[in-house]
Amino acid sequence: MSDHMSPEEFRRHGKQVVDWIADYLAGIESYPVMSQVKPGEIRSALPSGPPERGEPFEAVLSDLGRILLPGITHWQHPGFFAYFPSNASGPAVLGDLLSSGLGVQGMLWVASPACTELETVVVDWLAELLDLPEHFRTNAKGGGVIQDSASSACLVALLAALHRASDGQVTSDGIKRRYTLYVSSQTHSSLEKAARIAGLGTSGVRVVDVDPRTLAMDPGHLRTLLAQDEAAGAVPAMVCATVGTTSTTAVDPVREIGEVCRERGLWLHVDAAYAGVAAVCPEFRWLNDGVAEYADSYSTDPHKWLLTNFDCAVLWTADRAPLLGALSILPEYLRNPATSAGSVVDYRNWQVPLGRRFRALKLWSVIRWYGAEGLRAHIRKGVGLAQELASWISADPGFEVHEPHPLGLVCFRPEWPGLAAAEADAATMRLLQLLNASGSVYMTHARIAGRVVLRLAIGGAATERRHVEQAWEQIRWELAALSTTLP
Amino acid sequence: MSDHMSPEEFRRHGKQVVDWIADYLAGIESYPVMSQVKPGEIRSALPSGPPERGEPFEAVLSDLGRILLPGITHWQHPGFFAYFPSNASGPAVLGDLLSSGLGVQGMLWVASPACTELETVVVDWLAELLDLPEHFRTNAKGGGVIQDSASSACLVALLAALHRASDGQVTSDGIKRRYTLYVSSQTHSSLEKAARIAGLGTSGVRVVDVDPRTLAMDPGHLRTLLAQDEAAGAVPAMVCATVGTTSTTAVDPVREIGEVCRERGLWLHVDAAYAGVAAVCPEFRWLNDGVAEYADSYSTDPHKWLLTNFDCAVLWTADRAPLLGALSILPEYLRNPATSAGSVVDYRNWQVPLGRRFRALKLWSVIRWYGAEGLRAHIRKGVGLAQELASWISADPGFEVHEPHPLGLVCFRPEWPGLAAAEADAATMRLLQLLNASGSVYMTHARIAGRVVLRLAIGGAATERRHVEQAWEQIRWELAALSTTLP
Ligand SMILES: Cc1ncc(COP(=O)(O)O)c(C=O)c1O
Ligand SMILES: Cc1ncc(COP(=O)(O)O)c(C=O)c1O
Repeated sequence: MSDHMSPEEFRRHGKQVVDWIADYLAGIESYPVMSQVKPGEIRSALPSGPPERGEPFEAVLSDLGRILLPGITHWQHPGFFAYFPSNASGPAVLGDLLSSGLGVQGMLWVASPACTELETVVVDWLAELLDLPEHFRTNAKGGGVIQDSASSACLVALLAALHRASDGQVTSDGIKRRYTLYVSSQTHSSLEKAARIAGLGTSGVRVVDVDPRTLAMDPGHLRTLLAQDEAAGAVPAMVCATVGTTSTTAVDPVREIGEVCRERGLWLHVDAAYAGVAAVCPEFRWLNDGVAEYADSYSTDPHKWLLTNFDCAVLWTADRAPLLGALSILPEYLRNPATSAGSVVDYRNWQVPLGRRFRALKLWSVIRWYGAEGLRAHIRKGVGLAQELASWISADPGFEVHEPHPLGLVCFRPEWPGLAAAEADAATMRLLQLLNASGSVYMTHARIAGRVVLRLAIGGAATERRHVEQAWEQIRWELAALSTTLP
Repeated sequence: MSDHMSPEEFRRHGKQVVDWIADYLAGIESYPVMSQVKPGEIRSALPSGPPERGEPFEAVLSDLGRILLPGITHWQHPGFFAYFPSNASGPAVLGDLLSSGLGVQGMLWVASPACTELETVVVDWLAELLDLPEHFRTNAKGGGVIQDSASSACLVALLAALHRASDGQVTSDGIKRRYTLYVSSQTHSSLEKAARIAGLGTSGVRVVDVDPRTLAMDPGHLRTLLAQDEAAGAVPAMVCATVGTTSTTAVDPVREIGEVCRERGLWLHVDAAYAGVAAVCPEFRWLNDGVAEYADSYSTDPHKWLLTNFDCAVLWTADRAPLLGALSILPEYLRNPATSAGSVVDYRNWQVPLGRRFRALKLWSVIRWYGAEGLRAHIRKGVGLAQELASWISADPGFEVHEPHPLGLVCFRPEWPGLAAAEADAATMRLLQLLNASGSVYMTHARIAGRVVLRLAIGGAATERRHVEQAWEQIRWELAALSTTLP
């Protein structure tokens, strides 16, 4: 070893790896969904120092199975209902493998023109699939770009918003005034993180009230907060509306929020990290009502629910100028004729990092393998199973289901008759622990109006009706068992 | 199609892809290094809209060869001497494939413990391989983390520095004073980008003079600038010293810069994106002189010269507390017993994005396949070839070589006797264009003291002595041909 792996060795080991993955996927139900290891267990099983001499590739495969697998929580397991799905799929994994094999770095158009141009094509394709507005397309004033995550997409949107709100002054001179960002209590924590990173700080994040039932942002309160803050000398920079919040898939009223933003020339970003891709189906396009008219930027994650393995988040903007204003820098060593002529897109100016992986390949591979039809079928299956589950839970008097639940996520909790709120919450958490320790499901929790609920998110490629049935049966069974131990 | 790809279909198509890549690598010399397509050519050859129905996987492979390959600039070609290398290698590509196949998302320890713990192990291994100080290890106060890029690593370092310099106030309340960042004219543009993103703006970036011969930062001028800025009320937040600058691999005097920082309690980040990995060889450890004593953070890119395909940048810090202070947020839906007990590392708090790919697998696979021995041999080969090339160029009276050139990069230019500076620079650029259009090499340029130089960076896994000989022969040949056309 210690020598480079030759193409012929790559061919041989590559096939071993493909077999390993195919076997892993075929047998995935035999593993506990959630890893049952203790902190430090995996680390202490690995050598504390690097090898002096190279080892055969088989050593990696063998330690992967023997040491690492027990420490893997299996996101592709059909019983994985935690967080939101992070779908992989065969065509995505193979598209990604092609990207690794080609080994190109697409920071500039000239550094590999196909890497940039395929990206332009697929983000335009995805805009069409989701029925996003024409002005988000690359031929118009806007354009899309693949980012590593929704977090980065929101940060980039905030930087563009600050650039516009300050007429470029934040970019040239930094934060000199009190800029504010508007979110709700249900907004993802990545927005607070973006505000910190961009120099607004946590106190620059203003939390708008939500409707207590739907948990959607209250545009009236947004207007009040804006007026207060402006009166106090702050400069509102951006509002983030969420389509499909993390805790409960609440949908903020983008149209009404957009009207408030429009009145003030304020940047509206729509974070549709999980839910946005559902718009491949016409019946879910209501989610994006108002986006065409009001959104300055919009992001969704094919790496969550659209069968494209992590990382692949797409950000679109209605006007790329402020984004490029905020992030473009052209040092001498990156100058080249195509860039200087302005005839090409250089996506490095649309993101935080300089270097870029050829991520468009995996999204292209997914869209081609499934076609619009296959993508719709996948989304519909997840939503359909979730709605069935919700109907079963609602029909059981021992449980309460949070409404609405328009997509693939159902939030619910046992009633725990006789227990006070705090005890009931502790009991719900205990139930969650028992379920996750069983190895057949993995779920997480959230809090709604202070109360703990279980989150069961359906959308994995391997999840079938029987897995949802089993999960529901197991929930009832564990609840019954646990209830007998309670006072 | 339109259905999910079954494990057996994956097995079949996976092997097709492995064969495709093995054939591609075996025949890579048959392609022009630099793509010769025109802007828009690839895009216009692709369908403008997505397919309604799924297509067989073979369609992707066939369009890849037919439509995309002409638009690929081949970074793994042995004649690729542009920018810095972005090495891939068999073990890296296969480690990455395993990561895609497992499809885990490692934002939290609990989300897949092995993803976090293997990362801890390999960043500690790499610290040992590079002889970085003990306090950079995870068991000490510091620790390492894999980032997507050196750009993000520098941004994260700056956020930690701002947190410390402001006693946490920047994190809670945002930028309220004039914070400054110190770089040289040779520092990578990602530092200016980081300053913009973090709310310091371009004017918050203070450019320290360099030694006109070595292009290394002048610690005396750093001290002068700091005193001036402090007198003017600014708060210096961070100094970035570069080990191996992008234009010429200049090495800033880390020790002397560190002494200046220590006097003022100022954060020192060392950006060793390209050159840092050379420290696998004891004879290149002088590069890091002063790092152990003075660096608060340090980053280097295995995805450049250490055979690990993009993306894989490693950031270490001497004290993780300010970094965690700047970036940690724990919303309810991510709470879990292991995190609450403080018994695990959650790397999401060490980076901009939330989600994380299992990138440690590829670095682990690389270190095990090559061993310390193989990694050293790879670095030594690149440096050896570059030194030979430099000696050939120096021996030719028609060329001037920039000194020093301690690593794998050689910067040089034809003398162009009789031409004024501007004409000579234009002629050098013309020579570069001709060379790149030939298809057998790809090089880029830089400016040193205002004059254009050619950059020839050696370090690709496939590059052998004969490729460097051929490149040199071709340079002389093209120069001779071009010279006859000049006045
Ligand atoms: C609504 C929402 N926004 C943003 C994110 C962050 O996603 P990423 O990991 O892509 O940054 C999430 C993750 O669950 C989310 O649900
Ligand atoms: C010295 C230096 N720092 C930072 C970078 C940025 O690298 P990345 O693409 O990993 O952000 C480079 C890239 O060439 C570099 O040479």
